Amino acid sequence: MTVTSLSTARFVELCRTLVAQRPLVHCLTNEVVQAITANVLLASGASPAMVVANDEAGDFASIASSVLINLGTPYPERLQAMRSAIDACQKKGTPWVLDPVAAGVLPWRDRIIKELAALKPTVIRANASEVLAMAGMGHGGHGVDSTDSSRAALVAAQHLATQTQSIVAVTGEEDYVTDGNRTIAIAGGHALATLVVGTGCSLSALVAAFLSIDNNALEATAAAMTLAKRAQEKAISQTQSPGSFRTAYIDALFELTHGAAQ
Amino acid sequence: MTVTSLSTARFVELCRTLVAQRPLVHCLTNEVVQAITANVLLASGASPAMVVANDEAGDFASIASSVLINLGTPYPERLQAMRSAIDACQKKGTPWVLDPVAAGVLPWRDRIIKELAALKPTVIRANASEVLAMAGMGHGGHGVDSTDSSRAALVAAQHLATQTQSIVAVTGEEDYVTDGNRTIAIAGGHALATLVVGTGCSLSALVAAFLSIDNNALEATAAAMTLAKRAQEKAISQTQSPGSFRTAYIDALFELTHGAAQ
Amino acid sequence: MTVTSLSTARFVELCRTLVAQRPLVHCLTNEVVQAITANVLLASGASPAMVVANDEAGDFASIASSVLINLGTPYPERLQAMRSAIDACQKKGTPWVLDPVAAGVLPWRDRIIKELAALKPTVIRANASEVLAMAGMGHGGHGVDSTDSSRAALVAAQHLATQTQSIVAVTGEEDYVTDGNRTIAIAGGHALATLVVGTGCSLSALVAAFLSIDNNALEATAAAMTLAKRAQEKAISQTQSPGSFRTAYIDALFELTHGAAQ
Repeated sequence: MTVTSLSTARFVELCRTLVAQRPLVHCLTNEVVQAITANVLLASGASPAMVVANDEAGDFASIASSVLINLGTPYPERLQAMRSAIDACQKKGTPWVLDPVAAGVLPWRDRIIKELAALKPTVIRANASEVLAMAGMGHGGHGVDSTDSSRAALVAAQHLATQTQSIVAVTGEEDYVTDGNRTIAIAGGHALATLVVGTGCSLSALVAAFLSIDNNALEATAAAMTLAKRAQEKAISQTQSPGSFRTAYIDALFELTHGAAQ
Repeated sequence: MTVTSLSTARFVELCRTLVAQRPLVHCLTNEVVQAITANVLLASGASPAMVVANDEAGDFASIASSVLINLGTPYPERLQAMRSAIDACQKKGTPWVLDPVAAGVLPWRDRIIKELAALKPTVIRANASEVLAMAGMGHGGHGVDSTDSSRAALVAAQHLATQTQSIVAVTGEEDYVTDGNRTIAIAGGHALATLVVGTGCSLSALVAAFLSIDNNALEATAAAMTLAKRAQEKAISQTQSPGSFRTAYIDALFELTHGAAQ
Repeated sequence: MTVTSLSTARFVELCRTLVAQRPLVHCLTNEVVQAITANVLLASGASPAMVVANDEAGDFASIASSVLINLGTPYPERLQAMRSAIDACQKKGTPWVLDPVAAGVLPWRDRIIKELAALKPTVIRANASEVLAMAGMGHGGHGVDSTDSSRAALVAAQHLATQTQSIVAVTGEEDYVTDGNRTIAIAGGHALATLVVGTGCSLSALVAAFLSIDNNALEATAAAMTLAKRAQEKAISQTQSPGSFRTAYIDALFELTHGAAQ
């Protein structure tokens, strides 16, 4: 199977389009990462909104450009809002991203992940241990952290993509985006990002943002992952510690997208 | 209608009083901005507390200096706690602020906003699209972001103030505070603040803090908005990117209030 | 009663062990501080996870290295998840920390604190006003902030430790850790930390992390508190304002633990 890369020209084009269109991303995400998710989207040129009540989540998903469903801290009431939002996506053809946090660790959550993955998310964005678990090849991560390399999860990602008819994006030392046939690899980035909570979860939101501005979902997903990798590299050139890395990462997302937009 | 400004001497006096009195601000706010709201209040000299269970929200509002009600992520249980807190404010004469996030976008939320606005908040703090929507003159924002200028919402703000008997504070390129008769304008600030989640929501908390330390609610509200504008200007003199702007903004709030306090 | 200190060699050893073992800390904490709690744990070498549904909180606590129960924003559903997690801790012998935020201020909350304190937490980590309230010697804090000095709460802490059979850790200008007989004092730190939301709450999470890597709970708790004090000192040497202090504090936690690990 051929693994290709995203051209710089295409990456720059997609960043420019994102800033120009300012898509509205409806985020139903976990309790821990809401602020960084909103800040990552704002810095990159998108417009985040967290509408969480079941009474209005479907209505809001209907007018959103795309939707993020992140299962970091699911509980019954919030899951109802997620189901309403997904239902609206299906009716409207709105792209949505599933982030199956900690797949393979807890049985209750795994049943939910299975249920939502069957609803054909446009993209499943996950770490290596989560992808391996969803493909039935895993042995569980360390809580919410991956204990496997993304390379080791590539075959599982391709298998999962074929099985779910979703694009699967697996992040790690090298990132891969695959629809089961075609695969794009994105190298670079920096491991210090794993010591800042929400860099992975907010990347799933960025994927949702890019999905709404281009019909090529594989390349749009790869653009989001490329943006995160480039921003990590820009941040690590300025600091080696995670507190200031977090700040530098947000700055870099803004500078990369708004520089590309000029 | 005359538009006046807040004198520097009065602004400095109110900042000094805030730091000296350290008012206790009970915040019932949205999920996304809780940390920045607390940090903005702490940096400015107030003492934030988020008490969210309906079982104790009324009791806590009874001992708080002021209360913030922000409708960014409402859901039924949390709304009950908000109603209990508002009820306590009405019994005790405690000032409270309503932040009607995304007014005009979703019908369920609009019914709640209408219900709570009828309970006579001391101040309604909102962006231009929200004020226009509440005054029945709007066409809806872009999710939670304003698509209108504050200048365009000034007449709507004055109308809404007369209608609700609340002070209305509308933020944008220029901020306006009005009771329907008198209007104070606050110029300055910087648009990069709109790329940091929670700068608007935490300003509503700052308004609540200032309301508790002075009987002139119009001027107290204007002082909070002046503080935010001055802190944005101080921050933009240090950085042009939103991650470090967020940090510089909190620093500036502290330096402006605690410098004023000396 | 003798008050001793933790040796530097022991502190360094415990930091090295933390980084080497990367314990999984299950945090059931308040809405305001979830991100800083995760970032403090990640920077210090631990692996945080917030699993909040009652449907899976017990299962996750069963596989966690330690558990944090923080009562900053309790409500009935979340309390059920906390009880399930505590139950799992008792069955497995997993250490857990109780952070009784705002003890002595609100009757509903005080009943919960009393109920959970009776379940023999390994450590109760609190500010001076909270310790005085729990020991029945208090007059209430200012919302969630302490109005008493830690020195004034030392006798209450020793009394509370004897009464609950828990270790009691009281933070303030000087920190104390006591089991009722032995007491370790930790000096230093900086008061600016009290203007950054979550420094206290995330310290309780750090205590949970250290508890899981050493059988001497008194010294493990003291090591967590020493780490926080040293990181505050490192941060204040770089900035005098709370926004950048927050960033510098996270950086310092990383540098102190990962430097110690080399």
